Amino acid sequence: MKTLSILGSTGSIGESTLDVAARFPEKFRVVALAAAGANPSRLAAQVAQTGARLVAVADAGRAAVLEPLLASDVEVCWGAEGLVRAAEVAEVDLVVSAIVGAAGLVPTYAALVAGKDVALANKESLVVGGELVLRAARDSGARLLPVDSEHSALFQVLDGRDSEQVRRLILTASGGPFRGRQRAELAGVSVEQTLDHPNWAMGPKITVDSATLMNKGLEVIEAYWLFGLPASTIEVTVHPQSVVHSMVEFVDGAVLAQLGVPDMRGPISYALNYPKRLPMPDLGLKLWELEGLTFEPPDRKAFPCLDLAFRALELGGTAPAVLSGANEVAVAAFLDRQLSFLQIPELVAAALEALPVTPLDTVHTALEADLTARRFARDWVGAQGRGD
Amino acid sequence: MKTLSILGSTGSIGESTLDVAARFPEKFRVVALAAAGANPSRLAAQVAQTGARLVAVADAGRAAVLEPLLASDVEVCWGAEGLVRAAEVAEVDLVVSAIVGAAGLVPTYAALVAGKDVALANKESLVVGGELVLRAARDSGARLLPVDSEHSALFQVLDGRDSEQVRRLILTASGGPFRGRQRAELAGVSVEQTLDHPNWAMGPKITVDSATLMNKGLEVIEAYWLFGLPASTIEVTVHPQSVVHSMVEFVDGAVLAQLGVPDMRGPISYALNYPKRLPMPDLGLKLWELEGLTFEPPDRKAFPCLDLAFRALELGGTAPAVLSGANEVAVAAFLDRQLSFLQIPELVAAALEALPVTPLDTVHTALEADLTARRFARDWVGAQGRGD
Repeated sequence: MKTLSILGSTGSIGESTLDVAARFPEKFRVVALAAAGANPSRLAAQVAQTGARLVAVADAGRAAVLEPLLASDVEVCWGAEGLVRAAEVAEVDLVVSAIVGAAGLVPTYAALVAGKDVALANKESLVVGGELVLRAARDSGARLLPVDSEHSALFQVLDGRDSEQVRRLILTASGGPFRGRQRAELAGVSVEQTLDHPNWAMGPKITVDSATLMNKGLEVIEAYWLFGLPASTIEVTVHPQSVVHSMVEFVDGAVLAQLGVPDMRGPISYALNYPKRLPMPDLGLKLWELEGLTFEPPDRKAFPCLDLAFRALELGGTAPAVLSGANEVAVAAFLDRQLSFLQIPELVAAALEALPVTPLDTVHTALEADLTARRFARDWVGAQGRGD
Repeated sequence: MKTLSILGSTGSIGESTLDVAARFPEKFRVVALAAAGANPSRLAAQVAQTGARLVAVADAGRAAVLEPLLASDVEVCWGAEGLVRAAEVAEVDLVVSAIVGAAGLVPTYAALVAGKDVALANKESLVVGGELVLRAARDSGARLLPVDSEHSALFQVLDGRDSEQVRRLILTASGGPFRGRQRAELAGVSVEQTLDHPNWAMGPKITVDSATLMNKGLEVIEAYWLFGLPASTIEVTVHPQSVVHSMVEFVDGAVLAQLGVPDMRGPISYALNYPKRLPMPDLGLKLWELEGLTFEPPDRKAFPCLDLAFRALELGGTAPAVLSGANEVAVAAFLDRQLSFLQIPELVAAALEALPVTPLDTVHTALEADLTARRFARDWVGAQGRGD
């Protein structure tokens, strides 16, 4: 029996994780949940269904709303400290880290330091604090299991294979809703158009990132840390059908790819029960029903976020934290209609250029860089945004 | 340094093997060669290039033609016995078994009994004598390394993975030159049309087998023995682009695929140096230049050879040997314009129906079944063939 703590339980990854766990009650027991708490009745239902003993929410106000909906013996905590408590519960074996944004770093780090295996869906943990997260896992012997479909694909292909035999890691990208558009055609795209992702149903932040290709940029950084290969071996290929989740080319030219349906329960179930796969009868790929699978180069001019991510990796230290922090503010401002679509990469580039890069010595440094980037970004939005 | 014996050295697999070996002179030394000997000057050139000490040819006449072309210290032998000698040379580590047809079984078996690893390109070894070949490898501890691109793909994907986690082995088939044609449209197809394979340059026998889908049928039987999974887990999918060389679907729905350029040096190099891949710089896949990759079900009515192979597996014992022997004669008769294209499966079906199935206790039994099938097939050609 593996005991789980699910951080971000009411998000799409959290819900899918609960679905997988519920299918195998003899294998998994959910002990703790964390969510912002904006939907207290949903969270209360999750607690009732799973029998979780601890719930963390964003703040004391939400805790007060939630508490009356729960059985009296369920403990409610809140804030950053609450999140860390949910990550550190003594009896937990594996923490599913599925909080969106840089807020995910602290509990991810705490879980690894406490020796918990982490199924990682929170990109920013590795983007903002990759070096620290890897070190924490190495020091405690905890396992870091990717949940992103692309990294899970690479992880499944590489499993046990010598990384010296790798020529390229090939991350696939759907290309998002604006694939094929020229840069000039992206100036006036709306929030609604941006949120209309062709293949995956995801939260708004990641959907915007998917449209700008920043999502793929963040994944490049994530892959860099997860697989320990030089950035120059990581390539991005656009694959509009999102069937091939990623590929590895080996030194002999052979390419091993992982294919699957666009359902996060696949990667989640792989991470939850690694190294043994769980039978998931409804996740079979219908090869004969697929349209032709195609691959094309990303348009790095129309979608400069991709190169900005490579640039941040090259700068090293706190630069990826700056990239991530500036991007979070830029995306929020875009969703708020304060920035245009093309201003997202503009803002991120400005932050990377303006802010100093320092070595990543502590989680505090990483979060400080993220906060500095956010302040910079908010100022930039104030000065450059269209303010409507 | 690994020492090699290459059986079938002047065929396409043999030539590709020599190309790979020549790229890594510090890793491989060719000690013995075997070929029919129809092209003595080419064989003599191979001996000179590799420094092989022993050469086997089909018969004494060809040996007499070859001998004057060689240095005096090269030993020439011939016939079935010569082939076995080439497979058993004491100093040889790995035997590349790339003779075409059932003739490959005896030297393959001999090599495994002698404890040599075998890189197997000869399908019939497993089709005719699968049970015996597997037992010989198990008893001596020798490794059986597939060279067929499809089986190499499955081998690369499965490497080290628990076969209980496999839901389906998915063998890809190009569909051959007649893909998409109805059964009725195949009645009058010519030898020239049949030999015009869309993706791979191969010898005539295997090219005809590819057009009838018997090649895929033989590969199903081969996969059955190589991977030790029930026949019901083996599926065939038509994939006209021949980029995905085969796939494995696991119990969680994840599909791992191996992709590559249509160049046998990939699978050969993998088998020669297993488990470490050899750098092959010219074998990189140009993903962005591929046309769309598609998959479709095989037309089992137009190409009944596929189901005949499954039927032979189901019958067990000597039935696959009968299938193979009858098919070899049928293909030769088709190439000789004595049989029509559709008479190939007719003849094979007749042989499977007419001939008794016995347990496969010895290599002699296997070869006897093959010979009986050939006799039956020749009689059938005499009686039913168009005789023009």
